[in-house]
Amino acid sequence: MICAPLALTLGDPDGIGPEITLKAWRDLRDEAHCFALTGDPDQAYAAALALDLPRPEPVTSWREARDVFADALPVIALPAAQGPRAALASIEAGVQAVLSGEAFGLVTNPVSKARLYEAGFQFPGHTEYLAHLTAEAPVQGPRGPVMMLAGGGLRCALVTIHQPLREAIAALTPERIIETARVTAHALKLDFAIEHPRLALAGLNPHAGEGGALGREEIDILAPALDVLRAEGLAIAGPMAPDTMFHAEARERYDAAVCLYHDQGLIPVKTLDFHGGVNVTLGLPIVRASPDHGTAFDIAGKGVARPDSLIAAIRLASDMAANRLRAQS
Amino acid sequence: MICAPLALTLGDPDGIGPEITLKAWRDLRDEAHCFALTGDPDQAYAAALALDLPRPEPVTSWREARDVFADALPVIALPAAQGPRAALASIEAGVQAVLSGEAFGLVTNPVSKARLYEAGFQFPGHTEYLAHLTAEAPVQGPRGPVMMLAGGGLRCALVTIHQPLREAIAALTPERIIETARVTAHALKLDFAIEHPRLALAGLNPHAGEGGALGREEIDILAPALDVLRAEGLAIAGPMAPDTMFHAEARERYDAAVCLYHDQGLIPVKTLDFHGGVNVTLGLPIVRASPDHGTAFDIAGKGVARPDSLIAAIRLASDMAANRLRAQS
Repeated sequence: MICAPLALTLGDPDGIGPEITLKAWRDLRDEAHCFALTGDPDQAYAAALALDLPRPEPVTSWREARDVFADALPVIALPAAQGPRAALASIEAGVQAVLSGEAFGLVTNPVSKARLYEAGFQFPGHTEYLAHLTAEAPVQGPRGPVMMLAGGGLRCALVTIHQPLREAIAALTPERIIETARVTAHALKLDFAIEHPRLALAGLNPHAGEGGALGREEIDILAPALDVLRAEGLAIAGPMAPDTMFHAEARERYDAAVCLYHDQGLIPVKTLDFHGGVNVTLGLPIVRASPDHGTAFDIAGKGVARPDSLIAAIRLASDMAANRLRAQS
Repeated sequence: MICAPLALTLGDPDGIGPEITLKAWRDLRDEAHCFALTGDPDQAYAAALALDLPRPEPVTSWREARDVFADALPVIALPAAQGPRAALASIEAGVQAVLSGEAFGLVTNPVSKARLYEAGFQFPGHTEYLAHLTAEAPVQGPRGPVMMLAGGGLRCALVTIHQPLREAIAALTPERIIETARVTAHALKLDFAIEHPRLALAGLNPHAGEGGALGREEIDILAPALDVLRAEGLAIAGPMAPDTMFHAEARERYDAAVCLYHDQGLIPVKTLDFHGGVNVTLGLPIVRASPDHGTAFDIAGKGVARPDSLIAAIRLASDMAANRLRAQS
């Protein structure tokens, strides 16, 4: 059994993070995906108690985490903290562990942006905070972050993310598309072990603009980006009609779609695989994956939260970290 | 065997229309979905010859069409014409037959807008032309046209259709959303026999705007429309986060989604059911369905075109026409 531990963050302790972490441990304890939670052991204990699972085991090293994983969820113990402060401390500890090489990759449980803001958090979101925490570390290939959703046999990297749709359209430039495609292509090689990655760039407009009749962005913004990328030797098809590029046969023709706005990429992934979709951050010095759902405060503590997406994130991060290690050795 | 004939139009005779029509006849000849083509019998004959199927049978009445259907594709014979002119003559004859009550509903094969424009066609598309041809006829309930895509267990009605995405966003008004929802709800009752239809309105922005943080259209445009519709007694949920409303469990909660732009509705339908999706026009005096693909000139005449979407359109139009007849009797 290969067991390089992944660092799992707590997320907002009042959300479903602790519960799905324990459920993931229950379902994965016999598999090769060893991981440890960074956080306050008491918060994990409460979740274990509610699920009638063994008491999580506080540990002081990642090596020790590996040894206890088969019997209990290992917890790299942090001082007690509440809500968003606990969430942030957990993230910082997890990132440090991966940067130092003690942990293999990072899997983050969901945080509440609204609550983080109330606590004085200064970043647009989780991903930007991770980029900040890892900004000094060297990165192999072009630096991200690029957000990619994976699920249902589909990978979608996003050029724009959490912006109003109008602003996302206005923010599209050849440069942004080029950067997203470069980071995605490199990450497919490094983290997904795809030697010759094939990308597909989605159009913005219906039917990808129909030669200009239904919009000019494909001509004015996407085509110049494609020219540059192809001149670099990158295999990228497009602009594709957005509605006909995500079905099973179409997906066979590329390894990742490059999507221009949030819902263009998330609608197909979540329609195909609502429970098992994973959010991956590409182009960071560390491997990072997370479930693609939120804190779900409304069902937290009721025992009904599904760990599918977290489990998929753990498996994917484990594969990515192994691929990256192999590529670097 | 109930056999009220549907009128099938030829579409562009140089596209895959004739071929998939013959294939649909081959696959449906023993079922209750009797139909006749309106067009030049020679154009249908060439397709039958290539597929080694019986020679289509020219007929002079819809009653006669019903009698020959089990043995040959009936063709309501029109004078010989070429390309787009043949396509238009076929549409006009089909519409007239449905308006007069001789045919039960209309199923249209794909046309080429570019070629129609070259021939002097004055309408934005097929659907607007059908609205024009039926403008004088009475309609039960609010008048459309509203385009709805159906496939993969999902129905999506569109508030905007063939416009650049920027313009589609700018064109959103409470009135347009209200009209689309009214037409859709009424059509679900009349044509789909759903006594108490439940709609779900998609948001425009990521996470449906997150309370204004990611865009204001949900607050400024969608909420007022929802207020009006709910005051009328219409069951409509929303604004829904667009990425989490189309998976199997979410789809159970509504009968049709009301989508704000082309790809918001077409991405999920075509991702789930690329070959079997159907385009339905709601709020016309006649029942109309069509395959959701184009003329496919590149594969026409090669014998490889799949009739799945046309067959699904024929079945759906037949069900809709039967429901409408029942509702009106």
